[in-house]
Amino acid sequence: MKKGFMVVFDGSNGAGKTTVINEVEKYLSAKGLDVVLTREPGGTPIGEKIREVILDPSTPEMCDLTELMLFGAGRAQHLEQKIKPALAAGKIVISDRFDAATFSFQHYARGIALDTIVKINDLALDGFRPDINIILDLDPLAGLERVKKRGQALDRLEDEKLDFLTKARNGYLIQAKNHPEKFAIIDASQSKEQVLSDVLTVIDTLLAQQQ
Amino acid sequence: MKKGFMVVFDGSNGAGKTTVINEVEKYLSAKGLDVVLTREPGGTPIGEKIREVILDPSTPEMCDLTELMLFGAGRAQHLEQKIKPALAAGKIVISDRFDAATFSFQHYARGIALDTIVKINDLALDGFRPDINIILDLDPLAGLERVKKRGQALDRLEDEKLDFLTKARNGYLIQAKNHPEKFAIIDASQSKEQVLSDVLTVIDTLLAQQQ
Repeated sequence: MKKGFMVVFDGSNGAGKTTVINEVEKYLSAKGLDVVLTREPGGTPIGEKIREVILDPSTPEMCDLTELMLFGAGRAQHLEQKIKPALAAGKIVISDRFDAATFSFQHYARGIALDTIVKINDLALDGFRPDINIILDLDPLAGLERVKKRGQALDRLEDEKLDFLTKARNGYLIQAKNHPEKFAIIDASQSKEQVLSDVLTVIDTLLAQQQ
Repeated sequence: MKKGFMVVFDGSNGAGKTTVINEVEKYLSAKGLDVVLTREPGGTPIGEKIREVILDPSTPEMCDLTELMLFGAGRAQHLEQKIKPALAAGKIVISDRFDAATFSFQHYARGIALDTIVKINDLALDGFRPDINIILDLDPLAGLERVKKRGQALDRLEDEKLDFLTKARNGYLIQAKNHPEKFAIIDASQSKEQVLSDVLTVIDTLLAQQQ
């Protein structure tokens, strides 16, 4: 049986994650591969309930540690209930965000101690890591403009200052530098076609490695 | 200014926590003392939302680790937003359950590694501990009978087998033995009056120590 693998799409809001994920899913399905789409926070019925608590704009008083543990709780459930069974069945798991976002937003942007995040994340993942994090990299100001153009309401985490989003973006770049084997940075300011082409090059490399 | 302190009421379901807490609150208020009643899971708006996720009977698939991290998330919020400010203002905090229940139910009953629970609880509490845990100790079978008599629906955690509840009860007794300075065991099979009298003896001792 073919070995399953997990791809995470991540990066700034407005960088085009949703569009890219849908195109990649079509691309893989057309090859006859079995794809499971998922997301964080969320991914399971329990995870989606936790997502609602995390993103609720009516509770700005949420402590950093509370938020972090909620992400950890959802991630533990996500891994056990959805990701591991899919991989064991030889499927390709594509997740809209995963643990790299926690490091970017909670450590690099918000300043929570790295050690605290590592402890909680290691508990949740117990040694598991996605095969690749594809980061759609975009200047946060350009990302926010795109989100506003869509007319979407901002949730609690998106409703942050530009400085915060810039720190989060740099967090992705630092993680990619520290773990080049687990990250691919894609310039999301390019045309949609070029972004997708760059992404599919990464995906094809990954598929070739699974043969 | 008077120093605040924190009392936790805990023990088997049906042991009479709610009745005792209300009586103790009356007793302390009659002395002119400022009392804050709270509970876990819950205690804050965010904590109450987390409580709903934890206790939802429609999601029996919740992983042990997920449950544990949800308790940790709620506890961190509870401590920071409600307990610490109340204690700093010299108030008496009375909580219906706190961290002793996590050790009893998740470790002693469910068998999650003690080390995992300690890690998460230590992160949430950062060295803080309640002044006393008053355990209303009752045979779980007797407790279940009392809950059924009230006609209450059982939530996800209450809907467990007797063996599980017996292990949880023993968990409280073990914790009390290991930390006698932080626990008082009250025989909840006694008359309501005697239970309350025993509890007030503990409270009076605590009040005397705060003078």
